[in-house]
Amino acid sequence: MAAVVSNRRVILKRYVTGLPSEDDMEMVTAETTLAVPAGSAAVVVKNLYISCDPYVRRRMTRHEVPSYVPDYVPGEVITNTGVMKVVSSGHPDFKAGDLVWGITGWEEYTLINNPKSSIYKINYSEFPLSYYTGVLGIPGITAYAGFFEVSKPKKGDYVFVSAASGAVSQIVGQLAKITGCYVVGSAGSDEKVNLLKTKFGFHDAFNYKKELELEGAIKRCFPEGIDIYFDNVGGATLDAVLPNMRTGGQITACGMISQYNLERPDGVRNLFYFVAKSLRMEGFLVSRYRGMYQRFEEEMAGYLREGKVVCVEDFAEGLDAAPAALIGLFTGRNVGKQLVAVAWE
Amino acid sequence: MAAVVSNRRVILKRYVTGLPSEDDMEMVTAETTLAVPAGSAAVVVKNLYISCDPYVRRRMTRHEVPSYVPDYVPGEVITNTGVMKVVSSGHPDFKAGDLVWGITGWEEYTLINNPKSSIYKINYSEFPLSYYTGVLGIPGITAYAGFFEVSKPKKGDYVFVSAASGAVSQIVGQLAKITGCYVVGSAGSDEKVNLLKTKFGFHDAFNYKKELELEGAIKRCFPEGIDIYFDNVGGATLDAVLPNMRTGGQITACGMISQYNLERPDGVRNLFYFVAKSLRMEGFLVSRYRGMYQRFEEEMAGYLREGKVVCVEDFAEGLDAAPAALIGLFTGRNVGKQLVAVAWE
Repeated sequence: MAAVVSNRRVILKRYVTGLPSEDDMEMVTAETTLAVPAGSAAVVVKNLYISCDPYVRRRMTRHEVPSYVPDYVPGEVITNTGVMKVVSSGHPDFKAGDLVWGITGWEEYTLINNPKSSIYKINYSEFPLSYYTGVLGIPGITAYAGFFEVSKPKKGDYVFVSAASGAVSQIVGQLAKITGCYVVGSAGSDEKVNLLKTKFGFHDAFNYKKELELEGAIKRCFPEGIDIYFDNVGGATLDAVLPNMRTGGQITACGMISQYNLERPDGVRNLFYFVAKSLRMEGFLVSRYRGMYQRFEEEMAGYLREGKVVCVEDFAEGLDAAPAALIGLFTGRNVGKQLVAVAWE
Repeated sequence: MAAVVSNRRVILKRYVTGLPSEDDMEMVTAETTLAVPAGSAAVVVKNLYISCDPYVRRRMTRHEVPSYVPDYVPGEVITNTGVMKVVSSGHPDFKAGDLVWGITGWEEYTLINNPKSSIYKINYSEFPLSYYTGVLGIPGITAYAGFFEVSKPKKGDYVFVSAASGAVSQIVGQLAKITGCYVVGSAGSDEKVNLLKTKFGFHDAFNYKKELELEGAIKRCFPEGIDIYFDNVGGATLDAVLPNMRTGGQITACGMISQYNLERPDGVRNLFYFVAKSLRMEGFLVSRYRGMYQRFEEEMAGYLREGKVVCVEDFAEGLDAAPAALIGLFTGRNVGKQLVAVAWE
């Protein structure tokens, strides 16, 4: 008879409007069988780290027209990527004890029915496991594919990155440096600005909350204009960037965190610069670049080993801390990649 | 002794705010010598047709930061492209009687100091001369380069064109048909909508002024979404297009006529679709494609000859009518390419 354990889980209580509150989520306790159902190819995992990412918030709102990821369903567990240990497996490619990363639930144990399409072995165990929620996981490949495949940087380009100490942008900034670009980041606190300059090696950085006039702040950092803007925030920052773009410049739309809690998004007014300066903007979803994960992982592991890329993580401890950690992304509480340590081993 | 003639000209009286009024321009009479200055390589031309284009309005406002074309200077003649007859020439490539097109003044006679960089011989005199202000001139190559080089259409693409009966878009729609695309246009009157469907062969068209809800109107025309949006208006139409784009769709930003008279441009709110649908937007200036004029002219002449491209022109008669013709672009008065016949020969 298979062991049955109690399983604490974070469920979405109701669809969210505006800034999410802890009350929009609920901790519940279910029972989970640690063995896979007889004859199935599923695996059961113990969740070690779960990732907190801005797009999770978008899934908490009901979209009348289906968006690129399904909305969560109230009453069901929140899902996102994480790092897990296999507890039991009915799939030949996984065995108990394997360390994996991929899509899981915000809970202690998760039954994964189609492991081949959603979880991956951890290949570089020389790094902290948590890196697979960040620099070696989705944020890492998002930065890598977004910067190299969409932004297509050249040596000497002037690169601006917003939300620059966040999970994706901290990597983008360092990849820009590796490419020989001049890179400036914006962030929401002096602590983060300091981190950008000292830890991540950005050439310059500024605290956008302290600037009376964003367009001027950007101009001060880029007197000759911007070749590539890697946009994670949208809204007012995007509007202030547009007049500062160089002719032929490229905007890579990766995320728009400033907009996710607004029922009516901010209007961006400076779009005529697209014509006047022959600008390009391209949005992307990392799912398009799934096929390049292996190449990315190998290259990024090299950068990490050589110290050319470093990362800063912000750990929330315990599943109970997950709702507040998610909300903190939108108030700027996290410093670096936000994740939740559900269990240390 | 060279002949001196009186020369009526349209000058900019003052920088314009909001919708231009006739009073922002002034008719003055100067004297012009019909012979080129001794020893110069200039030409003197008699202006036959002058072109009225939306970007002329943009040059009537003072820009603190220089834009892609210089602002006009109050007290000086308005300049734009036109069709001209050479009256006298100090340049070996031009002689009296030559028909040319290129940059000239809104006046009866113009002294052109650097003819090689601003005027061109008319190669296809089988077509009405006025075509060199439209389908064989700047609007034509703007449509051709913008659609083929920037939009990069494929057969079967769903193409949406705004300001669709205008000088550029009427050509874009017909090039889309030639490419085997499905093409829908929006315009501001039932007369124009009728023209789109009957004269230019658009598959469908609608009068945006009669639609309560633009996003829904576009959805009605494109139940499967839009692959290419050729944008000449910006603002609310662009905002309504974004949710209707297909994944991976392309927006070509050619102009934003809805915004040129606004001191504060409209805000566009639906930009998150760039991420969610992996959209691309690219702006362009036709000057980038100067080098392809000859190829364009030859190809377009072929389409005109075969009847695959037709054009509709709206003539204002006499220089006195020029200010009102320009203003009419922004109130939708013109039906088709607006130009001014300064002299018939």
